[in-house]
Amino acid sequence: MPSPIDFYFDFTSPYGYLASTRIDALGAQYGRSVRWHPILLGVVFKATGCTPLPQVPLKGEYTMHDIVRSARFHGIPYQEPREFPLATQAAARAMLWIARHHGAERAVAFAKAVYQAYFVDSIDIGKIDNVAHLASGLGFDVGEVNDACHNNVVKEMLKTEIEAAMTRGVFGSPFVIVDDEPFWGFDRFAQLEAFLKDGKI
Amino acid sequence: MPSPIDFYFDFTSPYGYLASTRIDALGAQYGRSVRWHPILLGVVFKATGCTPLPQVPLKGEYTMHDIVRSARFHGIPYQEPREFPLATQAAARAMLWIARHHGAERAVAFAKAVYQAYFVDSIDIGKIDNVAHLASGLGFDVGEVNDACHNNVVKEMLKTEIEAAMTRGVFGSPFVIVDDEPFWGFDRFAQLEAFLKDGKI
Repeated sequence: MPSPIDFYFDFTSPYGYLASTRIDALGAQYGRSVRWHPILLGVVFKATGCTPLPQVPLKGEYTMHDIVRSARFHGIPYQEPREFPLATQAAARAMLWIARHHGAERAVAFAKAVYQAYFVDSIDIGKIDNVAHLASGLGFDVGEVNDACHNNVVKEMLKTEIEAAMTRGVFGSPFVIVDDEPFWGFDRFAQLEAFLKDGKI
Repeated sequence: MPSPIDFYFDFTSPYGYLASTRIDALGAQYGRSVRWHPILLGVVFKATGCTPLPQVPLKGEYTMHDIVRSARFHGIPYQEPREFPLATQAAARAMLWIARHHGAERAVAFAKAVYQAYFVDSIDIGKIDNVAHLASGLGFDVGEVNDACHNNVVKEMLKTEIEAAMTRGVFGSPFVIVDDEPFWGFDRFAQLEAFLKDGKI
């Protein structure tokens, strides 16, 4: 059994969203499971001294155009969010809590629902209430999810996830590591596929 | 006759080099000429507040790996330069001088020779002597090219090129603009091709 694919993403990352619509099918095609890891780019950028793309002069404007064009090019539904970027602690914590208490599969289903809500249905996923409502749509208890977002153990779990990611060299979203080979960006999925197919590039 | 493709690049940019090996063939395939514009990322980054990729923690190490892998993936010869990155004023000025006095076609041949020297033959193209030597291999006078690199008129030409590029939104290398549609990065060449083919994405 080949080792799993590690998929790192921030819920406010548009390229992370694009990648999220493809990563499971790509893994399945080559007999790999996918482990989904929510991270916070804000924490990562503090360590690397990076500025979020949309805030860089010239590059910011281009990036917003590129996201819409890339979604169209790949045939992925996309609606520019009203709030962008936004804080994603709540969504990330809720996901980790679901993973811990209900298993990775349901956590991934929740992550996909969050991404769809944010990048297709224009829902502000920075708000805990909206995150809890999305979770309830998947059968989770609103109160429990709400509590999880404030729970210190869950907060620590997220910190640990992010530290572990950075230790492995993760500095952006999406970021994929498979067999210790790192791929940054949805635009490296062609190379990722070549690697999954041949075990090398 | 469709309008030409504008191709912006810095001679020290590895992804610019990768793009330089493909842009003319891509243009020709869709009946477009290509106008090559040397720029200096140092000047551009001062305006946008960006740090060169190789100098960013985590991202820098990944990028060096990604360049080698991307060259291999696309079947493009690549040898990591001994000096990287380096100042490219001399090469850019020599190219603009050749374009002015001997035409765009010979300037592009010179640009390709510079890129090949730097990213395949490990020649330090930051040195004026090496730039002049490369030009002499294409039939230009070493002394004239040397003078051109120090000439105030040529210096102004380069400044004007860079300002014009930034006015059009150029913030990186490679950067392509065709029919006012901007494409940043060699990894957008698939989208560039789709645009050249269909006139839209």
